[in-house]
Amino acid sequence: MPAPRTVPILVVGSIALDTVRSPHGEVRGALGGSAIYFAIAASYFTRVNLVGVVGEDFPDEGIRILTRRGVNLEGLTRASGKTFAWSAAYNEDFSERTTLETTLNVFETFHPRIPAAYRRSPYVFLANINPELQAEVLEQIERPRLVVCDTMNLWIDFQRAELLRVLSRVDMAFFNADEARQITGEHNLIRAAAAIKRFGPRRVIVKKGEHGVLMSTGRSVFSLPAYPLDEVRDPTGAGDAFAGGFLGALARSPRADEDGCRRSLLYGTVLASFTVEGFGVEGIKSLTPRAIAKRYASLVDHARIPGQDGDLGVFSLPDS
Amino acid sequence: MPAPRTVPILVVGSIALDTVRSPHGEVRGALGGSAIYFAIAASYFTRVNLVGVVGEDFPDEGIRILTRRGVNLEGLTRASGKTFAWSAAYNEDFSERTTLETTLNVFETFHPRIPAAYRRSPYVFLANINPELQAEVLEQIERPRLVVCDTMNLWIDFQRAELLRVLSRVDMAFFNADEARQITGEHNLIRAAAAIKRFGPRRVIVKKGEHGVLMSTGRSVFSLPAYPLDEVRDPTGAGDAFAGGFLGALARSPRADEDGCRRSLLYGTVLASFTVEGFGVEGIKSLTPRAIAKRYASLVDHARIPGQDGDLGVFSLPDS
Repeated sequence: MPAPRTVPILVVGSIALDTVRSPHGEVRGALGGSAIYFAIAASYFTRVNLVGVVGEDFPDEGIRILTRRGVNLEGLTRASGKTFAWSAAYNEDFSERTTLETTLNVFETFHPRIPAAYRRSPYVFLANINPELQAEVLEQIERPRLVVCDTMNLWIDFQRAELLRVLSRVDMAFFNADEARQITGEHNLIRAAAAIKRFGPRRVIVKKGEHGVLMSTGRSVFSLPAYPLDEVRDPTGAGDAFAGGFLGALARSPRADEDGCRRSLLYGTVLASFTVEGFGVEGIKSLTPRAIAKRYASLVDHARIPGQDGDLGVFSLPDS
Repeated sequence: MPAPRTVPILVVGSIALDTVRSPHGEVRGALGGSAIYFAIAASYFTRVNLVGVVGEDFPDEGIRILTRRGVNLEGLTRASGKTFAWSAAYNEDFSERTTLETTLNVFETFHPRIPAAYRRSPYVFLANINPELQAEVLEQIERPRLVVCDTMNLWIDFQRAELLRVLSRVDMAFFNADEARQITGEHNLIRAAAAIKRFGPRRVIVKKGEHGVLMSTGRSVFSLPAYPLDEVRDPTGAGDAFAGGFLGALARSPRADEDGCRRSLLYGTVLASFTVEGFGVEGIKSLTPRAIAKRYASLVDHARIPGQDGDLGVFSLPDS
């Protein structure tokens, strides 16, 4: 069997030390940030070129986790000062998250510099950072095959024009349900996804947490349920790991077409499910291909519609 | 091709005159009630034996709609007084419904009497009514093959013991997400469904509205997305039509096993989608088998996972 096509991914985003409290426990100063969750999840599928900044306090253990996952750290800058720190608490049923503190530290003056060796990465993921920085990345990369971005409520509120400019230049965009509603003013997510598509991206992926994910090309819509978990420990980073599993799998797909994207969304779902089962990156930092493949098969079974091929399962309905 | 197996369904539930206001308009005194939505939806698949009560004000048009759908009205009682009346209003994004008025009228003294010809209906649906009345139905039926029930928040609050007794005697139960959480105290729907199963039913179906449906047997869980609609006019009755499409399709299925139930959930989803597109029963009162089959195929395509049979689409992941 020939080796599958696989292309490296450049990811630019936040690297943080997270303090998170959930009904199931607490971690302090743990490895986190959008680029980290993405990079670890994608590393199971392809080569990941990371760009980000850490401070002098960034623990060696963080570097070790990324190195063990084979993540390319040439683009990781260590600046004088402290690492971006974030702390948050989830309520009893995980329906609400309260951000307790966001201290930008070295992230405040960060401007992404893409190493020469990274500039031709065929796939690029602009993780959730200020859209001005996302635009700076777009200026430095050369003929990417696929550019995907993520964002958050803060930028929709305060950097809308910059965000819309980025959206006009990407191939695919990730939003969670609230953000998709916020940026479009449409409550119905089918309409919201279609409206986002008109901003530029040809595929829009709306993450709905426990309710799964929706992918719209404007013409067609695909929905996939979440992996059924009866316990969640820490949802932090699930969206970023989702994107990492998705884009990693897409980088190994024969084609980045509808079917390739649908299958890759399953991998995103699998990586997100492992993420929420542990605190921080515990759930994804040392997976095996076997564990990923097993959960993928289990997700397929969970969402399987019988009689799908040929026989659509359409009964001959009584005439009436 | 031999005619498909099809068994009649007995449904007992409310019949109402509904006044509903939504952002898209208003209807006054329109045909409604749990048994009505169920009966019309199920009528596209099999014979429906209806039991319920109406008052002297019940319009001929209501009878005509049911007769045209071939619903057996031998069990429909006309009592002196007025028909059960209900009015409600939806907010701008359909996230909230305010019940404005509930006037029981003839429903206040209703006790279901199952005509002799109905008593051996192999399939029985106990639509959302007081669990004491549901229990009265169970006393009158003879060796049913499958009994399914629905309920609502009111009975969970005020008739919990009676409801639990009914649940211990049925094969399958329908809940919406809020009700499933309410009766079990479990926020996680996978756990909530498993907890309801311990009350008795061997299959639990949790309706999640725009997020689709979840079916649990305790061991296995199936999730199906909703049919993607970019406009909803009136969600009233969607859950009852969902149950009607489900049980109707199941009555035509070769087997009421996991695959038969999964396929039938797709038909439930299709009937619910037609329901919410119109006010009252407008969206479902005159469908064609062709329209149902077309939307079924479109739902299959919407939720289709590529490479599902044989090739699970599991890439050979890099060893790491």
